[in-house]
Amino acid sequence: MITNKNFGEIPQSYLFSEVAERVRRFEQQHPDARVLRLGIGDVTRPLAPAIVEALHSAVDEQAAAASFQGYGPETGYGFLREAIAAGEYAAIGVDVSPDEVFVGDGSKSDSANIQELFADSARVAVTDPVYPVYVDSNAMAGRLGTFDGDRWSNLSYIPCDDSNDYRPALPEEPVELIYLCSPNNPTGTTMSREDLEAWVAYARKTGAVILFDVAYRAFITGDDVPRSIYEIEGADEVAIEFGSFSKTAGFTGLRCSWTVVPKKLQRDGVSLHTMWLRRQSTKFNGTPYIVQRAAEATYSPAGREQVRADVEYYLANARLIRETLENAGVKAVGGEHSPYVWFRCPAGMDSWEFFDALLEQAQIVGTPGVGFGPTGAGHFRLSAFNTAEATQEAAGRLAELLPKLAS
Amino acid sequence: MITNKNFGEIPQSYLFSEVAERVRRFEQQHPDARVLRLGIGDVTRPLAPAIVEALHSAVDEQAAAASFQGYGPETGYGFLREAIAAGEYAAIGVDVSPDEVFVGDGSKSDSANIQELFADSARVAVTDPVYPVYVDSNAMAGRLGTFDGDRWSNLSYIPCDDSNDYRPALPEEPVELIYLCSPNNPTGTTMSREDLEAWVAYARKTGAVILFDVAYRAFITGDDVPRSIYEIEGADEVAIEFGSFSKTAGFTGLRCSWTVVPKKLQRDGVSLHTMWLRRQSTKFNGTPYIVQRAAEATYSPAGREQVRADVEYYLANARLIRETLENAGVKAVGGEHSPYVWFRCPAGMDSWEFFDALLEQAQIVGTPGVGFGPTGAGHFRLSAFNTAEATQEAAGRLAELLPKLAS
Repeated sequence: MITNKNFGEIPQSYLFSEVAERVRRFEQQHPDARVLRLGIGDVTRPLAPAIVEALHSAVDEQAAAASFQGYGPETGYGFLREAIAAGEYAAIGVDVSPDEVFVGDGSKSDSANIQELFADSARVAVTDPVYPVYVDSNAMAGRLGTFDGDRWSNLSYIPCDDSNDYRPALPEEPVELIYLCSPNNPTGTTMSREDLEAWVAYARKTGAVILFDVAYRAFITGDDVPRSIYEIEGADEVAIEFGSFSKTAGFTGLRCSWTVVPKKLQRDGVSLHTMWLRRQSTKFNGTPYIVQRAAEATYSPAGREQVRADVEYYLANARLIRETLENAGVKAVGGEHSPYVWFRCPAGMDSWEFFDALLEQAQIVGTPGVGFGPTGAGHFRLSAFNTAEATQEAAGRLAELLPKLAS
Repeated sequence: MITNKNFGEIPQSYLFSEVAERVRRFEQQHPDARVLRLGIGDVTRPLAPAIVEALHSAVDEQAAAASFQGYGPETGYGFLREAIAAGEYAAIGVDVSPDEVFVGDGSKSDSANIQELFADSARVAVTDPVYPVYVDSNAMAGRLGTFDGDRWSNLSYIPCDDSNDYRPALPEEPVELIYLCSPNNPTGTTMSREDLEAWVAYARKTGAVILFDVAYRAFITGDDVPRSIYEIEGADEVAIEFGSFSKTAGFTGLRCSWTVVPKKLQRDGVSLHTMWLRRQSTKFNGTPYIVQRAAEATYSPAGREQVRADVEYYLANARLIRETLENAGVKAVGGEHSPYVWFRCPAGMDSWEFFDALLEQAQIVGTPGVGFGPTGAGHFRLSAFNTAEATQEAAGRLAELLPKLAS
């Protein structure tokens, strides 16, 4: 056999493709319907003026021989590594050195590629529901065993739902790689300082490595919720952290992210920092110069203010969605420090039943929770990434539909 | 063991880092030296006006809500897939469908990631000397066994030097994945139609898959040298092809590439096209929209003419380097259909001896051939990616130095 047999184990339909396909069919049958998309987590606000200005200016640099930039450092330009270390870490009192920051082309790539640093035999744990990329990237590498239609045989699922207040419990079986995401995709819940302390202590005791995803950290409001795992003492010996400009600054189409691999993080006598440097130098050629200049601009005073305004815009949408659900008697989480709102489908419907009902009866597209793992079954995700107008219209339709479904 | 032990097998110093380090030391010791860089294969010409215009215009689209583009298709936008299919394939009479073209962020990533589609046990062959990424990406995946300081125990090396006129011989041992690159990096040599026919026939007979890298195809002049492996009948059942805008259009800092995985290419009853689609959808989130618009602009009438002029500019440098070497009695290959010139180091020097001599006595930076594999030992690569002025100055210094070294 010449091909990677692990690909054959992965269930065929990827969540968002199936959603897209059902919407396509619906729109074909109902060409006049005004379908409102509160599904896939893509931003809709245009790029902020400070970012646009930085892009134009960087493009002009590329147009002149004296300022032209060819290959950049695979790890990212110093100016951006420094801006991230200052703007994301020093700003919250956390000491991350610029050369511990690796600039990437998206948290999807970074969080999918990180597993390459680990042994094929490494035991993986994910919270459930979970961002599918963590799971599928490990499945492709052959770490997860076989899929029985619901679960992977060699994956530890840590269920999160209203029965445990969405707080992932420490694993009872031994695990070596743990993916955590706060604010969480898909549930919108956050981990408290106390929760993170327990996880860091667990990893320090067991030697596990925590892969911590803060792609949504810009949505955290107030000072109670940690914005980085490195706010916890000792986390720099146990955790890798992924951050992104996608949701913070509307970079889903521009592509820029960062990964922190602390120099203190060692396993088997090997520096994971050195391994990631080697991985990136060998398989990646850097994020476009012009995009790195755009990312840098999000830390200028004007840039900061503009991207903050966009985040606030989405947060207002999120609050409206959550309130609409709760006013209709549907208990929801998220939507406070997150663009996502998560809830059990009303009237005992399963995720796809509710998806179809929502699409057919209210022309709203959401995301079936079951697509995020077994504990997501019977749940649903709505996102705040639409215009205020569309969100208000969707809220009105929801307020009308939900009582009908309940009766 | 939690870490990937294969990383530990890979020799520590990456070719270009060591070159950079030696140059840094030299410049520190000789702050007044005017060092001329004919080493790493990076372009120096600024972006062509048509590309700059497309970038500005795409940035403006991103600045307005109505034209804002968030997540794009992981496979690339239709407009660029169509432009590549038309401009790179239909233009040379080859039938590649737009949906067989996957847009990527660089041939380095694409050619490093492609091995994920194959079994851990797949036997790999490379021509030697070789672009190190093919080797290192397979080493990281554990396919190559152990490294003895010179060779990997489970890698088939196909030597290419003046003893076989740089024509890679068909493997005698069974191999399953074969990396070929034409015009070749590092040697600058090309494969003829006849050579490619033999390789395609070999792969059709044995079931091997050819991974064909045409990153330098824009440098081919005239009609005798194939620009795509798909010019050979039946290649679409045995070959994946990698192309890039890096060297064609100065995109080393912008990052855009393409990979063709034909729908007819199947192994073990599985479509490699479907596997790559799955791989890219799971682990990659697309090339920036603005960069794809820039790549598209290289196919407009003005864009085409402008990028062609840049290629001609580098080709003139390449010819000058080759002529200078040959006038000094150093037999060289490449430099005709390639920005690279390759030769045996004069006076029996080894690659690093000649590197140091060139740096210290003529302040020219080149690339030691031994960094590209065992058959590269005693060889050297010079590249045409500098200004005409710097290349002329380097040629003058070479013409002075070479006779001294020979005597």
